[in-house]
Amino acid sequence: MAIPIARFPVGMKRGVTTVEIVAIGDELLSGATVDSNAARIARELEPIGLRVTHKATVRDTVAAIADAVRDGLGRSGVVITTGGLGPTKDDVTKSAVASVLGRPLQFREDLWEALQRRWSRRGKIPETNKTQAEVPVGAEVLPNPRGTAPGLAVDCELGICIMLPGPPHEMQHILTESVTPFLAARADPAARKPFRRHLRTAGIAESAIGERVADQLEDLPIEVAYLPEIDGNDVRLSAWAVDESEVGKSLEEAVRRLHALLGLHIYAEGARDLAEVVGDLLLERGMTVAVAESCTGGLVAQRLSERPGASEYFWGSMVAYDNRAKVELLGVSEEALERHGAVSQETVLEMVDGASKRSGAAVAIAVTGIAGPTGGTEEKPVGTVWLAVRVLDRTVVKRRHYPGTRDMVQKRAAQGSLDLLRRTLLGEEE
Amino acid sequence: MAIPIARFPVGMKRGVTTVEIVAIGDELLSGATVDSNAARIARELEPIGLRVTHKATVRDTVAAIADAVRDGLGRSGVVITTGGLGPTKDDVTKSAVASVLGRPLQFREDLWEALQRRWSRRGKIPETNKTQAEVPVGAEVLPNPRGTAPGLAVDCELGICIMLPGPPHEMQHILTESVTPFLAARADPAARKPFRRHLRTAGIAESAIGERVADQLEDLPIEVAYLPEIDGNDVRLSAWAVDESEVGKSLEEAVRRLHALLGLHIYAEGARDLAEVVGDLLLERGMTVAVAESCTGGLVAQRLSERPGASEYFWGSMVAYDNRAKVELLGVSEEALERHGAVSQETVLEMVDGASKRSGAAVAIAVTGIAGPTGGTEEKPVGTVWLAVRVLDRTVVKRRHYPGTRDMVQKRAAQGSLDLLRRTLLGEEE
Repeated sequence: MAIPIARFPVGMKRGVTTVEIVAIGDELLSGATVDSNAARIARELEPIGLRVTHKATVRDTVAAIADAVRDGLGRSGVVITTGGLGPTKDDVTKSAVASVLGRPLQFREDLWEALQRRWSRRGKIPETNKTQAEVPVGAEVLPNPRGTAPGLAVDCELGICIMLPGPPHEMQHILTESVTPFLAARADPAARKPFRRHLRTAGIAESAIGERVADQLEDLPIEVAYLPEIDGNDVRLSAWAVDESEVGKSLEEAVRRLHALLGLHIYAEGARDLAEVVGDLLLERGMTVAVAESCTGGLVAQRLSERPGASEYFWGSMVAYDNRAKVELLGVSEEALERHGAVSQETVLEMVDGASKRSGAAVAIAVTGIAGPTGGTEEKPVGTVWLAVRVLDRTVVKRRHYPGTRDMVQKRAAQGSLDLLRRTLLGEEE
Repeated sequence: MAIPIARFPVGMKRGVTTVEIVAIGDELLSGATVDSNAARIARELEPIGLRVTHKATVRDTVAAIADAVRDGLGRSGVVITTGGLGPTKDDVTKSAVASVLGRPLQFREDLWEALQRRWSRRGKIPETNKTQAEVPVGAEVLPNPRGTAPGLAVDCELGICIMLPGPPHEMQHILTESVTPFLAARADPAARKPFRRHLRTAGIAESAIGERVADQLEDLPIEVAYLPEIDGNDVRLSAWAVDESEVGKSLEEAVRRLHALLGLHIYAEGARDLAEVVGDLLLERGMTVAVAESCTGGLVAQRLSERPGASEYFWGSMVAYDNRAKVELLGVSEEALERHGAVSQETVLEMVDGASKRSGAAVAIAVTGIAGPTGGTEEKPVGTVWLAVRVLDRTVVKRRHYPGTRDMVQKRAAQGSLDLLRRTLLGEEE
């Protein structure tokens, strides 16, 4: 179905504000691969004032790609394609774009030589790869040091079309090094873009955040978004402006109010992880933490060791999954296990005691619970978790109930134990 | 831009073969949320002979949604939308679909009562939620026990349009319970669909698999796809047919040849995880495993405890992250650490010894390495990992080098240790 294309409005080329994405490949449509490229592109172009307003995911046929590119150019004037630049017969992006733009493919000797050099280490390049050295007449070549298919950019009277390879690590490099500067030079300098603050919370439900925040920010020119994760809820504040100076004060005021409304539930600003926050608190105090964990099966340890240099504050963990390990490794008494069970205040206290004694660390965490799906009782349903934290001579113990699947209970229990440690290190009285 | 819609061809209603998806929401386009719904829908509809041939991701405006739905109905006759069914003013999917289909929205008293009942536990339902009880005239209501917005299906002369809520756990339930049967009843019984086998490998590069397989399956009517993951490479075989009986023998033959070509590198068929395979081997032998891990920071333990009932074969893990923990917890000698370093054959052997002795378990795993990004030397670069496995009185030790970021080295080392245990349990001579 041929749709007549809108001619590129004069002057728009230097005032680009919107971009469309065409993601190419049967594997994306069949669900074998989930596309992460489009989200990357959107996040990277946002700070230069460009907004992704449409995305089409299409099969790797010339007709499907050409239709999507034509529609996108007609609506927005700028299209970025991902995928279909390889050497096989399924890779037809360039032919499709060439047909839409009316610019035939041209064999480029310099690109072919570069490809041959790249291949020389692993033998002679197959003749079929010659198609990778063909580009639409007048296209700008965007170097791809991580793969064989370069990116391509065409800026013509029909619009701007940028073609990028599908593998994310190749795409990402070309996006940052070439595409962003290419589009920044053509973006509307007077476009409004979002300036954002991101706050991370633990131990409070999305609805409870909503109730506390309610209309408390309504006098500010700020959008509030609640972003629920399995183990906590983030709050994102956005203010749209040409320049940060227009909204900086409003954003600061909104952040200040959220701290007043949510208090210690906020553990970080930006992208910081709770384990990182806890790590920094331990570093500041020159303390080391040891862990005794059961139902989380190593997840607390894994969280604490994610960051390079974690050995400065993380001693290690005793993952006492089997009850025998609780006795042999942590010195939990047979009596506590028999009389009160593995998931009990008595056992978690003996576990935190074992972690302290075994390690000599100033700080200890213990976690024991029922992650499910089986093993629950009326008195202790699936999701029941006991947490204990010791900081020097202070011990705090909590019973929690985490909803969800086995995996969700494990994640929530690990996050809960790290949050209890954070609050205890901050000296919160409870 | 209004595109004249193709009238629904007579008889096609009972012969549906393709489906298009329209994913709705600014958050999807801005990169704040990655859409997993489309992949779910594609995988779930594949076995009933329906193929997703196009996906549009659009902003939450009536015009953008209506255009995408109209285009999709014109091309394929069947459109599934996700998102935009909530109670806020951004939720305009129903209005957009109603305008395309020419079927006005109708307030349904029965749905409103059901919504009020659902809300009764948390107080009075806001009047703004009344829009959630409106449906296009003649729509079938698809129950959503996990949320307030039901799914909707309209089957009319313009095509089939199904509207689903955006939250994945709500979408998934309606998809399985209502959408799949609804579409199965309308699918073309003579459509070819893919029958698949999925083989999982460890310890062999994608290129090496490619070289071994090469043209060995070319006489069979089978498509081969290589699916690389961070910690291994999967091979997917697909054969298209109306009925499995047409291709079952070819698939079996292809699987047999792959086993001959790849040998013990294949650890599972289907979606099984390597930790699950190892767990089953331990269960069969009535053995229990204990772990001593350093650079993997708890990941080996976490993998082994992912499955319910893991305590039948998993004793626990000693995550000896700090060197002091290696000494105090595992009994590694100061001498081994000083003379050979924490990442050495001597240390990993003392670690596996410590895990055995401390636990009394018949099987032990030890892992120590340099996950990076810092800490590497010329002799022991980042990615150097020592693995040891003990099964009864047999001990196997290996030095490996895993490329990639810290996170990738940790994942690959954990997988490598589980794979070494699998091979040792199977009695492979090396």
